[in-house]
Amino acid sequence: MADARVAGQIAFLMEADRLKTILRQTPLIDNSRRENSAEHSWHLALAAIVLREHAASPIDLLRVLELVAVHDLVEIDAGDTFAYDAVHRETQEAREQAAADRIFGLLPADQGAYFRTRWEEFEAKETMESRFANAMDRVQPLLQNSGAGGGSWTTHKLTRAAVLARMAPIETATPALWPAVVEVVDAFTKAGVLK
Amino acid sequence: MADARVAGQIAFLMEADRLKTILRQTPLIDNSRRENSAEHSWHLALAAIVLREHAASPIDLLRVLELVAVHDLVEIDAGDTFAYDAVHRETQEAREQAAADRIFGLLPADQGAYFRTRWEEFEAKETMESRFANAMDRVQPLLQNSGAGGGSWTTHKLTRAAVLARMAPIETATPALWPAVVEVVDAFTKAGVLK
Repeated sequence: MADARVAGQIAFLMEADRLKTILRQTPLIDNSRRENSAEHSWHLALAAIVLREHAASPIDLLRVLELVAVHDLVEIDAGDTFAYDAVHRETQEAREQAAADRIFGLLPADQGAYFRTRWEEFEAKETMESRFANAMDRVQPLLQNSGAGGGSWTTHKLTRAAVLARMAPIETATPALWPAVVEVVDAFTKAGVLK
Repeated sequence: MADARVAGQIAFLMEADRLKTILRQTPLIDNSRRENSAEHSWHLALAAIVLREHAASPIDLLRVLELVAVHDLVEIDAGDTFAYDAVHRETQEAREQAAADRIFGLLPADQGAYFRTRWEEFEAKETMESRFANAMDRVQPLLQNSGAGGGSWTTHKLTRAAVLARMAPIETATPALWPAVVEVVDAFTKAGVLK
């Protein structure tokens, strides 16, 4: 028999597989289907590694990658809450806290506490690592929607103002990326996708 | 206009999106569909963070996460080569080298070289970071197939000996995990899934 510690780690990793079935509003760039939260999390990790030089102040990249790896796990129970859905967002915190109790609770206690702290750090947007990770979590869907010709901006009839407000963490955490963001938003406004 | 460096980084990240369309032989644990290489890469990152304590010698976890993030990108052009497919594996290296030229070539030159070195490190299985990352790349499909009731072991009629040979890097890089691996392989042998 594998020891209890390894068994808990394996149970957690097998439960995490379910994140691959949680669909986001954002499509793949080829518009073939909606993106899931597991592949989205990988894409954020890759973006963090590629774009690290643009962090407004020094970051611990390992910590960023830990934040990114766990940031959406609570969606296994709580589902993905669309960033622009104000009503659904009101109940989001309670749903996600319960999910965190259960999912991180599968791990050995010390690791469960460690991962939960990382998830809470991501949510709090206070440390530079969290702010950078959250900026990646804004940039990546922007690239998806842009490449897909509108994506969830089109399906949800979003406004230029709403998208720019959502993207604001990019301007503070990774200011060098902001001109590229504005360029995309301007182009999609001019094309009539964003009102 | 975004500057040329940022433009190259964005072009690479948008191209990387295609990894989400590359299907592996391994199913999701709920057997609803085959796993893709992007969500697989995220799962390896999570496994590396959770299982780091089991590395046979000290590892630089950041480097492991960099290896894992880029290890399958060449599949965008070269496709996924099934680990047990000896014929297809003969042409794999040439296909993957050409893919690496093109895909990492989208990045600014210094970053393209950095990422290519990381991919080559993963492939060479020489450093402890590479050996640990490769062990994760064996453990994760084992958990998928195990949870799915056989997965690609069933569809490809694999033998116990072939699976144990494929899993060998786990025994050397993360020996504490080996009993759990043998336990799974024994159970699926006893059940008649592995011959």
